Amino acid sequence: MKTVAFIGLGNMGGPMAKNLVKQGFQVRAFDLVQAALDDIASAGAYAANSAQDAAEGADVVVSMLPAGKHVKSLYLGENGLINLLNDNALVIDSSTIDAASAIEVGKALNEKGIQFVDAPVSGGVGGAVAGTLTFIVGGSQASFDAAKPVLDAMGKHIFHAGDVGAGQVAKICNNMLLSILMVGTSEALNMGINNGLDPKVLSEIMMQSSGRNWTLELYNPCPDVMENVPSSNDYQGGFMVDLMKKDLGLAQQTAMDSASATPMGTLANSLYTMLSNQGSGKKDFSSIFELLKSEQK
Amino acid sequence: MKTVAFIGLGNMGGPMAKNLVKQGFQVRAFDLVQAALDDIASAGAYAANSAQDAAEGADVVVSMLPAGKHVKSLYLGENGLINLLNDNALVIDSSTIDAASAIEVGKALNEKGIQFVDAPVSGGVGGAVAGTLTFIVGGSQASFDAAKPVLDAMGKHIFHAGDVGAGQVAKICNNMLLSILMVGTSEALNMGINNGLDPKVLSEIMMQSSGRNWTLELYNPCPDVMENVPSSNDYQGGFMVDLMKKDLGLAQQTAMDSASATPMGTLANSLYTMLSNQGSGKKDFSSIFELLKSEQK
Amino acid sequence: MKTVAFIGLGNMGGPMAKNLVKQGFQVRAFDLVQAALDDIASAGAYAANSAQDAAEGADVVVSMLPAGKHVKSLYLGENGLINLLNDNALVIDSSTIDAASAIEVGKALNEKGIQFVDAPVSGGVGGAVAGTLTFIVGGSQASFDAAKPVLDAMGKHIFHAGDVGAGQVAKICNNMLLSILMVGTSEALNMGINNGLDPKVLSEIMMQSSGRNWTLELYNPCPDVMENVPSSNDYQGGFMVDLMKKDLGLAQQTAMDSASATPMGTLANSLYTMLSNQGSGKKDFSSIFELLKSEQK
Amino acid sequence: MKTVAFIGLGNMGGPMAKNLVKQGFQVRAFDLVQAALDDIASAGAYAANSAQDAAEGADVVVSMLPAGKHVKSLYLGENGLINLLNDNALVIDSSTIDAASAIEVGKALNEKGIQFVDAPVSGGVGGAVAGTLTFIVGGSQASFDAAKPVLDAMGKHIFHAGDVGAGQVAKICNNMLLSILMVGTSEALNMGINNGLDPKVLSEIMMQSSGRNWTLELYNPCPDVMENVPSSNDYQGGFMVDLMKKDLGLAQQTAMDSASATPMGTLANSLYTMLSNQGSGKKDFSSIFELLKSEQK
Repeated sequence: MKTVAFIGLGNMGGPMAKNLVKQGFQVRAFDLVQAALDDIASAGAYAANSAQDAAEGADVVVSMLPAGKHVKSLYLGENGLINLLNDNALVIDSSTIDAASAIEVGKALNEKGIQFVDAPVSGGVGGAVAGTLTFIVGGSQASFDAAKPVLDAMGKHIFHAGDVGAGQVAKICNNMLLSILMVGTSEALNMGINNGLDPKVLSEIMMQSSGRNWTLELYNPCPDVMENVPSSNDYQGGFMVDLMKKDLGLAQQTAMDSASATPMGTLANSLYTMLSNQGSGKKDFSSIFELLKSEQK
Repeated sequence: MKTVAFIGLGNMGGPMAKNLVKQGFQVRAFDLVQAALDDIASAGAYAANSAQDAAEGADVVVSMLPAGKHVKSLYLGENGLINLLNDNALVIDSSTIDAASAIEVGKALNEKGIQFVDAPVSGGVGGAVAGTLTFIVGGSQASFDAAKPVLDAMGKHIFHAGDVGAGQVAKICNNMLLSILMVGTSEALNMGINNGLDPKVLSEIMMQSSGRNWTLELYNPCPDVMENVPSSNDYQGGFMVDLMKKDLGLAQQTAMDSASATPMGTLANSLYTMLSNQGSGKKDFSSIFELLKSEQK
Repeated sequence: MKTVAFIGLGNMGGPMAKNLVKQGFQVRAFDLVQAALDDIASAGAYAANSAQDAAEGADVVVSMLPAGKHVKSLYLGENGLINLLNDNALVIDSSTIDAASAIEVGKALNEKGIQFVDAPVSGGVGGAVAGTLTFIVGGSQASFDAAKPVLDAMGKHIFHAGDVGAGQVAKICNNMLLSILMVGTSEALNMGINNGLDPKVLSEIMMQSSGRNWTLELYNPCPDVMENVPSSNDYQGGFMVDLMKKDLGLAQQTAMDSASATPMGTLANSLYTMLSNQGSGKKDFSSIFELLKSEQK
Repeated sequence: MKTVAFIGLGNMGGPMAKNLVKQGFQVRAFDLVQAALDDIASAGAYAANSAQDAAEGADVVVSMLPAGKHVKSLYLGENGLINLLNDNALVIDSSTIDAASAIEVGKALNEKGIQFVDAPVSGGVGGAVAGTLTFIVGGSQASFDAAKPVLDAMGKHIFHAGDVGAGQVAKICNNMLLSILMVGTSEALNMGINNGLDPKVLSEIMMQSSGRNWTLELYNPCPDVMENVPSSNDYQGGFMVDLMKKDLGLAQQTAMDSASATPMGTLANSLYTMLSNQGSGKKDFSSIFELLKSEQK
């Protein structure tokens, strides 16, 4: 079985690495936090001393890092893995970063004969633990095919979005759209409530009409319309406002770099920034419903 | 079988009245346009000389008119039907109008013992002809129950949204949300295309992710992603920009009257107004995709 | 000297009527509130028993009422003044109302030979007391000339905006623009502060550059940049958020009626609605600065 | 007299360098374009072979480059001037770039004892030729004092905005606000015109009321209200849409980096991106008036 170096064992990376161990991969893991290393070691992985130590001789490297600068530094910086990996190695970067950084790293690795895919995930910590993540992958067909068995060990839906960088672009398009669905649905529900409608009834009507969307299906932002969603639990859990704000920042960067007009995406960015500035950064992103509603209601 | 007076035989009203005839109702129809009267007469209805003539002795009145002022005039104006209808009559107004007008008319009729529901439709001319419209109904449970058999003869989905006026509110909430879905989806697809993605692939990915919504399912705004949608037919047919602009105007009225903050709804209104002002008022509303895309592409 | 009937003696109308008395007009005043009547009587006006009593035989009627429906009722409703005024009378409506209502009233009066101008004011209670209001007038040149001496007794700047209704349109255009200046200036100052700039220095630089606008000149929204403005007094006094919200509602109505695209005006409306809903309706409208700023700062 | 190295002789830099020559500075100039070098040489400057050649022994370096990456490369890149300049040298970067890059360069130079100010300009090519530019300067008081005589030779208004980077921030705050003034004024004028008002009359009224702003004073966006402005010359000349788009991009970057909510600034960015995408990138930025107006008018 293949040897996989796993760099970045946070809330997402840790359980993803464990699933690789479970599926029989030889995992050489590294993180700057010792507790994360201890945890993965107890699950059966080799706890490396450094990213370089982890990557030494690996067939595949998977990285799960916070931002483009960390990814660039890991692969292209001083002691970058680019100088250490085998010619036939495969790099899978599952971080959510700007497409420009993904393309820069992918291009540099490809020039050395190393395969690269950007493969950002969605599905949250729950999906990471359960091995049911969605991966949106950018890279050549050959690289995608090579990455598929590794991704299958950690996820359920594996999409091939296009060439290197396309995974990041597709994810950010999706999440920008998601934020718009969430704000729009919140506006519609609030306006209905302010006019005396029952939010459950209105949700059901729109769900079966042309207003249907993912948030009405699975993630209603109005408290007590659905069970087991953050809005019915004081907006705890779920996908934090500050993470959505990060993704909307990447979306604006992508829009500017490509001269794309995204009036609703930028408005969503402003609204989520206001919400975060008012102290709700750690709440679930469906709490935008609260920003819009009337105080008295 | 019951006698139904049908007032307003336009593109929608005409086929709706015919379906009532087909289902065995005795229909007394009126419209200001003689050709519409001739048409409904040939289908088996009585072509009345006036709205008053049509409503004389009817069990039910169905009206399908352009705006609140027409509805108010029909029922409450000079020679208004309010003075002519039986105590146990039922009025179904299927016009899409402002909720305030619906409530004013409903209240006045109720005070005279006449039942009233506002029952705006969606589904377009195709749905009117096929008898598959969706009705979103506001009124008491008793009035809803009384209206149900009549509506069943013209539609497929009949929702009870709440008290008088709730039908109009729910429809306008839904259509405001629909416009937001359409703009947001167009923004996401354009940004993807501008970054080299195939819109079919991106649509498929978002469709299976948290960006899923009615427009991706059934009404993709990007040409040649779906067959048999307006975007693949030069934005002909479908639901006109100017009709969406009308609905967004009603939504803004509703938002203002209820002090509801609808930042994306108002932005959609501005964008559709710009689109209409640029000469696209008669195109399908998915042509907002064209307003956002780059000239060179 | 001419006899002036004054209808509506609120915070604005009361001091305006007193200035007419001071300038030697014979004033016949009416209001539904007895205290307001007593007050104007002690200032030397005749306290009428009704609007009809006040208007009986008057050369000029000035009205200062909350909304279009009140103005329409006063002149065109049951016992409307239209049936009581002399042929050569002049009506000056200084209420801030929708242009459509002003045009409806003006047209009806003109058809009876009665002159009409819409003459909304700006300048606040302070300007009403000091007699330094600005009047923005719509009506024929002859009506404007006839109204000028009366308006001069209450104000300092008298503009002729165009035909009947133009006064309302011009005022609402101005106030919509004012709201945009206020939000935009608040955004710029906040962004500067968040990047370490001194708001006084930044205000001074923009004031002398192409960002110059009325709010930087006279009404800086950032606390302690200027003395004697609401922002330096906990946003007390000045022009209330809820009044700006009312004007932005009229602006949206005007925009919709004329198919005008006003993306920033509608956004301002949404933001002021949010601000009001968060409980700041009675604060000065420069408190939009607070909605935008970061919590921690 | 001091020796000034001038790097970047484009439309702005060329005439700025000439003004330094005229004021008696010894200018050592460099640009990648030979024609620009020939031109400055004929004006009396030394045409250097490279940036390094120009900077050799200079007391002051002035740079005028397109973007942050060029500035970073010039000073901190391979053969960066940081390794070549005297300890007591002064660097003035007049490029309009992101504040983060300015701060990075300034900090690095300061650590080597080299003084640095960021000093972006406004005033356009006309101001560059006439020596009447406005400079908005970031840096220590000592560095500002040192730069003042050099800037005086090229400009008329020299503002000290704060520490290093503050010049860039203040300029971008101002230009973001300017774009908002321009869009808002265009909306108000269009709405007035659509309701029958004369744009000259409306402009005059708002100019003397609370809507007053720089665009109404000097740069009215409606054709034929003012003489000698781009709007009266088919939107030729002036400040190009694409340059405003660049500045709004920097503003969005600054807003995101500082978690600042700028809903109108982001909306302006979207509208200018749409305008550019529709083919108006080379027109003056007041042509946003055209994007908003009705086709028929």
